[in-house]
Amino acid sequence: MKVTIKDIAKEVNVSVSTVSLVLNEKPCRVSKDTRTAILNVAKKYNYQVNQAARSLVTKRSNIIGIIIPDIENLFFSSLCKKLEECCLAKGYMLIIVNSNDKEEEDLRLLNMLVSRGVDGIFITPSNEALVRGERLPQALENLTTPYVVVDRPFENMDACSVSFDNKEGAQLAIAYLIEKGHTKIGCIGSRVSANHNGSTRVQGYLEAMKHAGLEVYDRYIFEGNYRHQDGYEAGVKIMESDLTAVFICNDMMTLGFIQCLSDYQKTYPKDYSIISYDNMINPYIVGDKITAVSQNVMNLAQTSCELMFDLIKHKEVNKKNYKLKPELIEGKSVLKRK
Amino acid sequence: MKVTIKDIAKEVNVSVSTVSLVLNEKPCRVSKDTRTAILNVAKKYNYQVNQAARSLVTKRSNIIGIIIPDIENLFFSSLCKKLEECCLAKGYMLIIVNSNDKEEEDLRLLNMLVSRGVDGIFITPSNEALVRGERLPQALENLTTPYVVVDRPFENMDACSVSFDNKEGAQLAIAYLIEKGHTKIGCIGSRVSANHNGSTRVQGYLEAMKHAGLEVYDRYIFEGNYRHQDGYEAGVKIMESDLTAVFICNDMMTLGFIQCLSDYQKTYPKDYSIISYDNMINPYIVGDKITAVSQNVMNLAQTSCELMFDLIKHKEVNKKNYKLKPELIEGKSVLKRK
Repeated sequence: MKVTIKDIAKEVNVSVSTVSLVLNEKPCRVSKDTRTAILNVAKKYNYQVNQAARSLVTKRSNIIGIIIPDIENLFFSSLCKKLEECCLAKGYMLIIVNSNDKEEEDLRLLNMLVSRGVDGIFITPSNEALVRGERLPQALENLTTPYVVVDRPFENMDACSVSFDNKEGAQLAIAYLIEKGHTKIGCIGSRVSANHNGSTRVQGYLEAMKHAGLEVYDRYIFEGNYRHQDGYEAGVKIMESDLTAVFICNDMMTLGFIQCLSDYQKTYPKDYSIISYDNMINPYIVGDKITAVSQNVMNLAQTSCELMFDLIKHKEVNKKNYKLKPELIEGKSVLKRK
Repeated sequence: MKVTIKDIAKEVNVSVSTVSLVLNEKPCRVSKDTRTAILNVAKKYNYQVNQAARSLVTKRSNIIGIIIPDIENLFFSSLCKKLEECCLAKGYMLIIVNSNDKEEEDLRLLNMLVSRGVDGIFITPSNEALVRGERLPQALENLTTPYVVVDRPFENMDACSVSFDNKEGAQLAIAYLIEKGHTKIGCIGSRVSANHNGSTRVQGYLEAMKHAGLEVYDRYIFEGNYRHQDGYEAGVKIMESDLTAVFICNDMMTLGFIQCLSDYQKTYPKDYSIISYDNMINPYIVGDKITAVSQNVMNLAQTSCELMFDLIKHKEVNKKNYKLKPELIEGKSVLKRK
């Protein structure tokens, strides 16, 4: 339940106008003790000073906010478009805001959306917030506005979330390469916890290799922070390896890797078989399409919206955490070995 | 000036509550004539029945809306990100909504944004609305909310707009190809008015060729509706032509064209020199970067925001229509002919 100025006035035993003056930092004759008492009670109940949304006098704004790391990232622009479609179908508009993958921005934008009186908040937390795992989860838990964590769930947090099973995605990729006769399979990805979805993909690779009884040496894993350049640099090292196939944990690194192949007069799948992750770049690829683990963004958007609308309507939510299944989309970047 | 229920009541000579009941379609004992009079006056002043934004009792929501054709298009996702940055810097949030390039959606979304009480509206009209040039310009002219037309201005409409000079962009491209020794230069683009920015590019190509005293035959121009497939199909015909260079009016068709080259075992710039338009695909291109006409999206966003904030503050606007200059960014897709 949202705390009102009236509730605070009652608890501190002062008038509503006194509370209003103090919280809005207007000049007034109030003792320091009373002022402190009012501020403490407001803080205790996480009272939000409504700024622009002070204007919202009804209970509903019919606006939902989404905080994402970067609208220019193909995955997130697609996610926003699909979320917007689902929201519009229910009469809600979507405010899209960017955090630039910074926790400070997550926190600032969260406050802005709340003070503007949105009815619900979708959030894909910055990787920074995920690693630290303190301030943002705390801020979210204090929210009185319904929220759904999308694509990047916090571990050990009792929040509604919808995300993909990244371990399973990696396992699909490795199983496919093994089925095609590959045994020396490398991986370009991030083992550091700063990228949780990413490190889970590497974990999936390791488990799938182990499960198949295949050796994994340290030199089979190439650290990459999801940028074009990381894929290229891993490519240079892979040229000197005995690998026949590479599992690359995102599309941008795949682009870097195939640029490297091109510069070294190599081609896929002839010289190296490739499986990518995301399946967003094929429209831009000239030549053979890339086999990739695909995450169905429409499914992510729909599931997130259903959960959100249940929360807004105060319906009982049967299931709070959804792990969606990724699928492998075949291109022409994997060669069968005899 | 925004018309209120009070103004309407005064003009019809009835009580405020009667007007409210009629406009909100609540049951009430009002004669048919009075009801009609109220509705007519409301219509005359373009009174907006506030729905969710009935809640907005202050004058400012600190929210600006943007209607764009497609958030998944790289140009528009980049535009939205930059507009959002500019808006946030001034304390405004941005609501992004998609029209899917349909006029009906433009109109529907416009109403939704207005009834939600946004302080201003950016709009990139659908090509459909641009060609028809009636209903959307009319709806915009009736607005009491400030608005700025971005990237696709209406001709003969007295509205604030910021866009790029598409003719000049094409002329830059052709001048560059001529300087590199090309004389047989083709063009893949749209001459139909359904794509105004596009047909202006073709116009610029024609004028630049004429200006240089170069022949243009009908077979030098390949109709293309900005899709990958159009670039590919034009490519098939270009293989049978005597052209040495091609000016392609957008990036997506360029991707289609170079896919075609690849399928026919041809390469750029060896077999054909290419200049593209937009300059958004180079991060995805493997191999030589494409020379392209670039539109500085940050400049578009900043100029649009400055205009918007002046309008919101009721400042006098010195200049209503901005035509920004495109620039040519050199890649490695043009070969010098001896």
